[in-house]
Formats: sequence, C-alpha cells, structure tokens
Amino acid sequence: MMERVYLDNNATTRLAPEALQAMLPFLTEEFGNPSSLHGQGRAPARALMAARHAVLELLGAEADGEILFTSGGTEADTTAIRSALAADPSRREIVTSTVEHAAVLALCDHLERQEGVTVHRIPVDGDGRLDIEAYRAALSPRVALVSLMWANNETGTVFPVEGLAELAHRAGALFHTDAVQAVGKMSVGLRGTDIDMLSLSAHKFHGPKGVGALWLRRGVPFQPLIRGGRQQRGHRAGTENIPGIVGLGRAAELALCVDHGAVRLLRDRLEQGILARVPKARVLGDPLDRLPNTSCLAFDFAEGEAILMLLDRAGICVSSGAACASGAMEPSHVIRAMKVPFTAAHGAIRFSLSRWTTAAEIDRLLEVLPPVVDQLRALSPFGAEEVK
Amino acid sequence: MMERVYLDNNATTRLAPEALQAMLPFLTEEFGNPSSLHGQGRAPARALMAARHAVLELLGAEADGEILFTSGGTEADTTAIRSALAADPSRREIVTSTVEHAAVLALCDHLERQEGVTVHRIPVDGDGRLDIEAYRAALSPRVALVSLMWANNETGTVFPVEGLAELAHRAGALFHTDAVQAVGKMSVGLRGTDIDMLSLSAHKFHGPKGVGALWLRRGVPFQPLIRGGRQQRGHRAGTENIPGIVGLGRAAELALCVDHGAVRLLRDRLEQGILARVPKARVLGDPLDRLPNTSCLAFDFAEGEAILMLLDRAGICVSSGAACASGAMEPSHVIRAMKVPFTAAHGAIRFSLSRWTTAAEIDRLLEVLPPVVDQLRALSPFGAEEVK
Repeated sequence: MMERVYLDNNATTRLAPEALQAMLPFLTEEFGNPSSLHGQGRAPARALMAARHAVLELLGAEADGEILFTSGGTEADTTAIRSALAADPSRREIVTSTVEHAAVLALCDHLERQEGVTVHRIPVDGDGRLDIEAYRAALSPRVALVSLMWANNETGTVFPVEGLAELAHRAGALFHTDAVQAVGKMSVGLRGTDIDMLSLSAHKFHGPKGVGALWLRRGVPFQPLIRGGRQQRGHRAGTENIPGIVGLGRAAELALCVDHGAVRLLRDRLEQGILARVPKARVLGDPLDRLPNTSCLAFDFAEGEAILMLLDRAGICVSSGAACASGAMEPSHVIRAMKVPFTAAHGAIRFSLSRWTTAAEIDRLLEVLPPVVDQLRALSPFGAEEVK
Repeated sequence: MMERVYLDNNATTRLAPEALQAMLPFLTEEFGNPSSLHGQGRAPARALMAARHAVLELLGAEADGEILFTSGGTEADTTAIRSALAADPSRREIVTSTVEHAAVLALCDHLERQEGVTVHRIPVDGDGRLDIEAYRAALSPRVALVSLMWANNETGTVFPVEGLAELAHRAGALFHTDAVQAVGKMSVGLRGTDIDMLSLSAHKFHGPKGVGALWLRRGVPFQPLIRGGRQQRGHRAGTENIPGIVGLGRAAELALCVDHGAVRLLRDRLEQGILARVPKARVLGDPLDRLPNTSCLAFDFAEGEAILMLLDRAGICVSSGAACASGAMEPSHVIRAMKVPFTAAHGAIRFSLSRWTTAAEIDRLLEVLPPVVDQLRALSPFGAEEVK
C-alpha cells in the first residue's frame, strides 16, 4: 500500500518517537503515583518536575509562572475562562473573537445564555485580522477576561497577542490566549508580556493525546475547575497522567529545536505550486503573519469535502475547515467570519505541515490536486463555465 | 536490587502489558484524530467505539446508557455533581458522606461555601458503614443529587449503593456513585439498578493514567463540564485521548476475567497473618462487606507514616491513610469519621493487593512488618509499656 501523505497536522500530529521512548518507562516499571511517599512514587514525582520545567522553557517563562497539567487544550481554555470569572465576580463581561476555537466559543455561548455573562465577539477582516478598533471599544472595567487565540487553527493567522494583552491590562482585565495551534509551530515567548494565562495541547506538536497545560502567570488570581486531592498545589486535582506529561515534556524539548523556516519553505512550495497550477484558487488568512506550517486555500466552484474525499482516496490527508466542524456541510465559523465570497466559501481546504513533511510529499500533492479540482468543477452547475 | 513488593494498588496500579500492547499502535502509526474524515481518522474512530463497548460490558450496562470518556475519576465526579445541579436549578441540596474521596468532598465544600448549595454529609459508624437513618432523614424534594462511593479507598468498605440509589429516587433525587475503587476490584452490575451516574478511573485497575469515564444512564438530564467541539456527542469536548481510551478498554476486558476470590484469599492471608503476629492491631472497615483486595490495619502506639517509611526501606510499598492525604501528619478524614480510638488512629496502614500479588510477597511482608512495628513501639513514649 502507498504511504499516506499526512497534511493535517493542525488536527493532530504523529507522536514523536523520542516522546514515546520517554513515556515507556512510565507505562511499564515506573507506574507509581507521584503522590506516594514510598519508592514507587519517586521517579514519577521527579519526571513531573522535569516535564514542568521543559514546558516552561518552551514558553520562555522559566521563572514567571506555573504549569498546570490538564487533559488538553479544551480543559485548559475552560479552566482559564471560568477562573477569571470566579476570581472577580464584579466583572461579568468577556471579550473574545468570532474566529476562536470551539473550546472558547461554545463555553462563551453557554455563559451568555445560562450564566448572565456578556460576551463581546470581536470581528475579523477578510484576511482574518482582528478589528482593533472594535477590540478597544469593547474593553472596559466590566471586562473580567480577554480570551484571544495566538494562532488560528484553520487559517494560521497570528494575532498580535502581546499588544492585545497590553490593551487588556490597561482596562484592568485578565488576558488569556488559546495558544494550542501556536505552541510548537512558532516561537512563543511569555517573558515580559502582559499575557496572564496560556493554553497548550501536546498532541498538536508531536506529544501524546490527552494531555495539555495551562500556564498561569505568578500572582494571577486563580480558581480551579477540578477540585479534589492536593495534586498540582490544589490547582488541578486528580492523579497526574505521568506518561502523558512526560511525553509532553519531551515534545516540548524537541519543539525548541524545530526549524520553523524549513517548514515555511515547504509550505510556500505547496502554496505557490497550487496557485500556479489551479486557477481561481485563493489563500485565506493573513498574508503577512501566519503560522509557517498552515495554508488554507479556497477553490471556487468546488466542494471542500469532496476535495478532501478524493485526496483521501489518493492517500493524502487534509481538512476542510476545522476538523471539529467537519461533518456539517456549511462553511466553518472562521470562513464565515472572514466573509469569504460565496463561490469560494464551500471550497476551503486546510493543508497543515509538520517538521517531517517532505518535498516529495508536497510534489505528490501538486500532482494529485489539480485534476481533482478540475473533476469537481466539471460536475458543478456553474463551475465548468466560470473557471474557463 | 531486591524486587519491590507493591501493596499500594488503591493508589495506582501497574499498567497491564496487554493494555500497553493495545495502546502502542495508537502511539505510533494510528495517531489520527477520530474526528478526521480521511483515512488516518478511521482506525482511531473504530477503536473509540470498541473501548466504549468494553467499558459498558464491564459495568453490566450494555444497553442502558452512555460512556463519556474523561481525564480520570476526579473529572468524572466533578462532571456528575455539577451536571445534576445544573439540570434542576430548583434543587439546591446534595447528600454525600463524610468518607467520600476528596474529589467529591472538596467540590462539595466549595459548592457550600461559594455557590449556596446545602450539603448533607452522612456519618458512618466505627466500621465505616453509612448511617442509613441519617441518610433517609436527609433526603427531600430539595435534594438534586446523592453522591455516595461504591467502595471506600482507604478501608475498602462497600456501601449498598443499589439500595441507597432506590431511596434517592423515591425522593426524586439523582444518584451518582464514585466507583473509582470498586470497578475492576469487585463485580459491578448497573442493569436494573437506580444508579444514574457512575465514575471510574482506568489506572485503578491496570489501565493507563489520565483516563476515566462517567457512565450516564439513558435519559438522565446532563450538562457538560467541558464544552467545545462536538466530540462525544457534545457531552465532553476535546480531542479524545485515543491511546488512553484504548488502554482503558483493554483493561476493562481483562478486569472481567479477574478472580476476585483468589485476591481475597491472599488478602485474608495477609490480614490473619498480621493479626496473629502483631499484638494490638485491628482491622478498620466493614468486616462483612469490603473490597477483596483491601486491608486497612491500625497499630496502636505506632505512627503510620513511620511504618510506611521503614517498610519502604525494605522494598515494600504501602499507604498510610489515603495517598492524597499523605504529607499531613493527622489521621485521614476517613479514620476520623470512623472515630478510630486515639491510640490507633495515627497507626493506620492500607495494604491493597492486585491480581498479580503473590503469596511469597505476602509472606515477605509478614516477615518484615512485625519487627518494624515493635521497633516503633519501643520508641513511643507509652507504646512499649502498653503493648506488653
């Protein structure tokens, strides 16, 4: 069987073999509970500390705060948002954007509907850039928290979170960033910024599934989402997922050494190759500030899900819109927020690379994709004529 | 180096080699996201369904409800309790016991202090049995939820949850059981009971850390704790921890075949051996209805933590009180709730066996423990005289 070409690394990534190697002792002999006072608990307790340090280093935040290990990005986001609301009950507003991950938007929708919180959803322009004037206007002493993603999972558009955090602080609001797509895919440095909380997820950068972290700046008020035992200084109860945490720590060490420029070159080869070969294709997202691994392309008069299926038959894995949104046939909330023209909105495909993507894989895509799009446009009621 | 004797299986267990084998493909080639529509998502999606089925079978509840995979027992407990409160805002009381796990008690304390919920904590007798009259008296139309553990983590005492659930339903309350210590250590059958929700944790029965489940009876009203993507029918958002879930599923299959009677025989050998060799030792917990793997023994005039340390030096791993409570020098909340006499309350040690515990390991403990207790009693200001 032909090797699969995996270009869906914003959905999930292959676990790094080095991370698995680091995990294996904790999946076998070193199975102890780090809270145990006897010998079986010692190696896990040490491994927990080492992983914490590795994650802090990846974030450029060794001395600035603490790491709470969570079950992933969604739990980290939920923890941050609920904590900020609980920390200051006099502030009952949240500022976020229209293009956040569902982990933030679904919770905000619920808070608005069920818990009397006012939510400001800042719009973006046609390139996915945040409307800064609308953002400034939404900030006030009523805002408990700003939650804005560092990089968008669908388009890779990077928000200027350092500056946005500064504005949030001037209004007295806490600032949280969902950095699930940014961490491991670009350099992230927290030292000296106004960012108070940051969410990350291991499986988005070659760590294991089921583990993530919330970084919490020293001194930021905090209320736990999950209470119980005294693990993690009482900030997140439950026996720690030691193998997962060790895998996250090793993935963080590896991520520090990634050559993001090399990934970007391959991404540009993909993007330029497609634009040269497929007419009426357009790149979605900020042309100047995007994740180096992500390219979201929209093809007029072709259905994204159909492209995905035909590429899959050829052994190439991509997403149409967000993986989470797949299954529904309408454009994702990100595509809609960017007001992508109707002819293209249904034809968006996300290509997301990893450090293991090769030029040969990109060239295989460039060979397979153009006839796939042609074939679908030929079936479209207006496509064949319009594209000529 | 001498092999460790691990008698702390209520703190955590060794991952079953079969579970690790089942997980490995999903830690390597089958790394896909089950929500993906392409080929890389298929095997993970199938594995997720198979694991769900295995867990339902272990619970004897194939057609009666659904499994929400969580990050562990604490998250499952938190989800159940918060869901019940959200489902019927007109009911603002919770009934629980004084000997629950911290995952339940710490949340209840918080709900009482911060969120205006009234909490009834039903006491237990000297053998750890629930005060049924007090329980009946606490039930009323104001009670949203009863949350009572199936088996106690420290003493192994089993609560008659089927009958307790029936009483809860007569009062119109939902019934949740924290079965983290019961599942995999005794037979658990949900069919035909009044139990509405059940929490379990994989690492307590030779599955991996970082994964657990909440079983939810069909038709029971539910509100998610963690919102976001559409995973798990929207009941628990976040990319599923596929390797962990697969490990849980395999551990569930293996647990169905465990000979609990054989474990009980070894536990009884341990208990009777100690009682025969160590004067002024007593068994804590219900003599008639206890987990087959657990023995909690209190030694008059000896400090539990000191016994733990000296056994650890000899390569034997045990707990003094709950692992979560370790680090503090006062008796655990369970010991205090049982009103264990002062002379013994500080000398409680929990021995918890697994299906891999051998008679030779028990015999090694029986050789090492008596001189350890003697040695400590000789140091005690009153111990040496009193025990003679």
